[in-house]
Amino acid sequence: MNRKMIGKLLGFLLLLECLFLLPPALISAADGEGEALRAIFTTMALSAAGGLLLYSLCRNAEKSFYAREGFLIVSLGWIVLSAVGALPFWLSGEIPHYVDAVFEVISGFTTTGASILTNVEAMSRGLLFWRSFTHWLGGMGILVFLLAVVPMGKGGYSVHLLRAESPGPSVSKLVPRMRQTAAILYLIYIALTVLDVLFLLFGGMSLFDSLCTAFGTAGTGGFGVRNDSIAGYSPYIQTVCTVFMALFGVNFSIYFLLLVGRFRQALLNEELGVYLGIMLGAMAIITVDIVPLYGGSIRWALHDAAFTVSSIMTTTGFATADFDLWPQLSRTILVVLMVVGACAGSTGGGIKCARLLLLCKTLTARVRQILHPRSVNLIRIEGHPVNEETIQGVNTYMTAYCAIGVVSFLILSLDDLSLETNLTAMLACLNNIGPGLDMVGPTSNYAHFSDLSKIVLMLDMLLGRLEIFPLLIMLSPRAWKRAS
Amino acid sequence: MNRKMIGKLLGFLLLLECLFLLPPALISAADGEGEALRAIFTTMALSAAGGLLLYSLCRNAEKSFYAREGFLIVSLGWIVLSAVGALPFWLSGEIPHYVDAVFEVISGFTTTGASILTNVEAMSRGLLFWRSFTHWLGGMGILVFLLAVVPMGKGGYSVHLLRAESPGPSVSKLVPRMRQTAAILYLIYIALTVLDVLFLLFGGMSLFDSLCTAFGTAGTGGFGVRNDSIAGYSPYIQTVCTVFMALFGVNFSIYFLLLVGRFRQALLNEELGVYLGIMLGAMAIITVDIVPLYGGSIRWALHDAAFTVSSIMTTTGFATADFDLWPQLSRTILVVLMVVGACAGSTGGGIKCARLLLLCKTLTARVRQILHPRSVNLIRIEGHPVNEETIQGVNTYMTAYCAIGVVSFLILSLDDLSLETNLTAMLACLNNIGPGLDMVGPTSNYAHFSDLSKIVLMLDMLLGRLEIFPLLIMLSPRAWKRAS
Repeated sequence: MNRKMIGKLLGFLLLLECLFLLPPALISAADGEGEALRAIFTTMALSAAGGLLLYSLCRNAEKSFYAREGFLIVSLGWIVLSAVGALPFWLSGEIPHYVDAVFEVISGFTTTGASILTNVEAMSRGLLFWRSFTHWLGGMGILVFLLAVVPMGKGGYSVHLLRAESPGPSVSKLVPRMRQTAAILYLIYIALTVLDVLFLLFGGMSLFDSLCTAFGTAGTGGFGVRNDSIAGYSPYIQTVCTVFMALFGVNFSIYFLLLVGRFRQALLNEELGVYLGIMLGAMAIITVDIVPLYGGSIRWALHDAAFTVSSIMTTTGFATADFDLWPQLSRTILVVLMVVGACAGSTGGGIKCARLLLLCKTLTARVRQILHPRSVNLIRIEGHPVNEETIQGVNTYMTAYCAIGVVSFLILSLDDLSLETNLTAMLACLNNIGPGLDMVGPTSNYAHFSDLSKIVLMLDMLLGRLEIFPLLIMLSPRAWKRAS
Repeated sequence: MNRKMIGKLLGFLLLLECLFLLPPALISAADGEGEALRAIFTTMALSAAGGLLLYSLCRNAEKSFYAREGFLIVSLGWIVLSAVGALPFWLSGEIPHYVDAVFEVISGFTTTGASILTNVEAMSRGLLFWRSFTHWLGGMGILVFLLAVVPMGKGGYSVHLLRAESPGPSVSKLVPRMRQTAAILYLIYIALTVLDVLFLLFGGMSLFDSLCTAFGTAGTGGFGVRNDSIAGYSPYIQTVCTVFMALFGVNFSIYFLLLVGRFRQALLNEELGVYLGIMLGAMAIITVDIVPLYGGSIRWALHDAAFTVSSIMTTTGFATADFDLWPQLSRTILVVLMVVGACAGSTGGGIKCARLLLLCKTLTARVRQILHPRSVNLIRIEGHPVNEETIQGVNTYMTAYCAIGVVSFLILSLDDLSLETNLTAMLACLNNIGPGLDMVGPTSNYAHFSDLSKIVLMLDMLLGRLEIFPLLIMLSPRAWKRAS
């Protein structure tokens, strides 16, 4: 195993984190937030020192680099970034308990948006900005960023890193060179985010609120800057959020296809069809279900139904209405949407429409096989036959996903909160959504849980964001053997 | 497709049902239950007439017989038997609503044990016996019985029938000839049931109660003859039930191996190890968790924990304690056990330990594959390599299982009962258990649900018992095409 390369890349990541902490530091400085500023500066100094030390120790790393190293760097990188990124909250005393601070930052980087804070508005603006900024950084991936900006020589590792960090059953290269693919993804991401900010500013939102809200939307994260999430803003702002959340749940390669003029291929995408079909269907059913709660006003029922479905299905987690109080049908649909998730290759979480599509097709092929044992049933996605390995991969992913869900659910139940709380907390963290139902509903938070449960939920968030295998492999003793 | 053969076998099944209704008729006659007796006689006459008609119309059926016909006969057979088996309850007026009567009988044949009755003790003894007897008949399978007793010529269909009706990822022939395998399975089943009855009689239970309780235990069904299930009987009786429920959850081929003296092979069975390991582990944890509710008495906590775990994991559904009132950890473990289920090749339901074992091994192999891409990872169960087709089959099964669960859960939520009620009702029916939590807890029943929900739950019970594919295939229009 190439330990030096792992160290070198971790060093890079720490240096990047130091850089990322600059904007919040500037905001704190401008607003005269002394405690927050000191905490951010200390963290910047620590991460810069750590990064330089690691880099200088490991600079002469060999080039050999395999899938295993890719998985290990991604897992370790995300854990180290979170452990360091939590320091400003803890050192400033704004989150007095270190476990809580790490929970908050992991929830940020993984774009979950589950919070242990009861009063967001009491936070300093610098740290509030950092909290939302982690969503934006984690959404597209920090190693993808590293790939896009740092020239790293010709090692074969870029594909392994991208594969380990990017969501979805398979990574499609947009262009032949990985580094360019990463750069294109980030450019689309930045462009969409800027567009979102402009639309929000146009609606009269302050620049600070617009930036933070756009970060939460772009990363499909869900941290807000107000205690009532998005409920206090104007209907126009809420509609902008509904639309942009849905846009960030789309596979980014669709935007690439649109950019290069391949409209037909982009719009006939099967996963996009499934994604939009489920989303619009859920909006329609929930609207009908909640109309009585809105005094019969279809318009406002649709407004909140659309916002909530867009928020939950893309795994963002913003809220305009307390959907925990909605009728059982709507609540159940939302729980199912939590699991479904957004498109592969988007910033959203969940199982993802591409996987579900593949599972459905495999099931249909199997029934056909039983009926006509001698027929050949090729499974095609987007017109291309899917190889056996991808199908196996998705099946194993589902097995691991279920196993992790069950184990987390069992451990959470030690806290003796309600079954609904535990189940939806697990789903909301594993699928990177944020709010669940009952005691973790949209008007509540995760402060009730014990430290053990918080640690389990943190692991769930990381497992969900990194799609399980990088972390599973990090936890496997075999992965650390020097030989082989 | 061989429609005549389907008709002929359905005719056989109706004749058998007429025969099976004889014992309840005798009991009703002996007890002077006029209404019940008339209802049973009418049903016997109808099923005999229908059976003879179908048989005479289709007696000259061709021999050609494929997997498709096997699946269709099993699905249709179970539906027809339930529709006819519900008539005595409805005609006698003891269950005034026909949908409820069908629910009760499907729940019986599928060995679920979910009931819509609020007062079991008000039923006539003849019909109470019939209700429990359906558990015993459905437990090992009615077509397996047909295979065992009726000489059907040399068509290749016996293996297709056995495969479609028997639980588990693969059917292992005990002896080279299928008919003998079916007969051996039934003989073991009868012997164990008789043993159970003897133990219950020894504890001072009446013959009627002993028979009904043994039927419910052997089929892992769970219909009782008292309103408080097994809670009112002596601790000795309860312990007998605990042990026999666990015994009927074991793969019957283990008993066969023991009978022919292959002790080593029987006791080193991997699935048996997983089954007993999970069972004993769950008993231990729940005992510790509920000890405070028993005033610190470990003995009585263990007594109820053992009974409940044995009942839920084998998917029987008898109750001695209201486990809905237990702490969240115990409740959550029980929900997980509902899904786990018993061994393949037993009378129990659920996903089954064999499938879970295979899924875990596939997952481990996959992690190893990522770490060492060039290594060969053969998956072995009981020392034998598992072929790719079996693994695929289990994966597709899990996909179908989850899809059916989600769809049922969504439809049930239309009733606006609690999320916990809907979720556990779906799990309890799909896994053929009976009681769930909250409003379908052990002291409650399924009378609250709307007719639509009851129909969904009936389908779930059938899908669970027949392991999904027979019904899926019956519902597929392609299956009915005459050509191919």
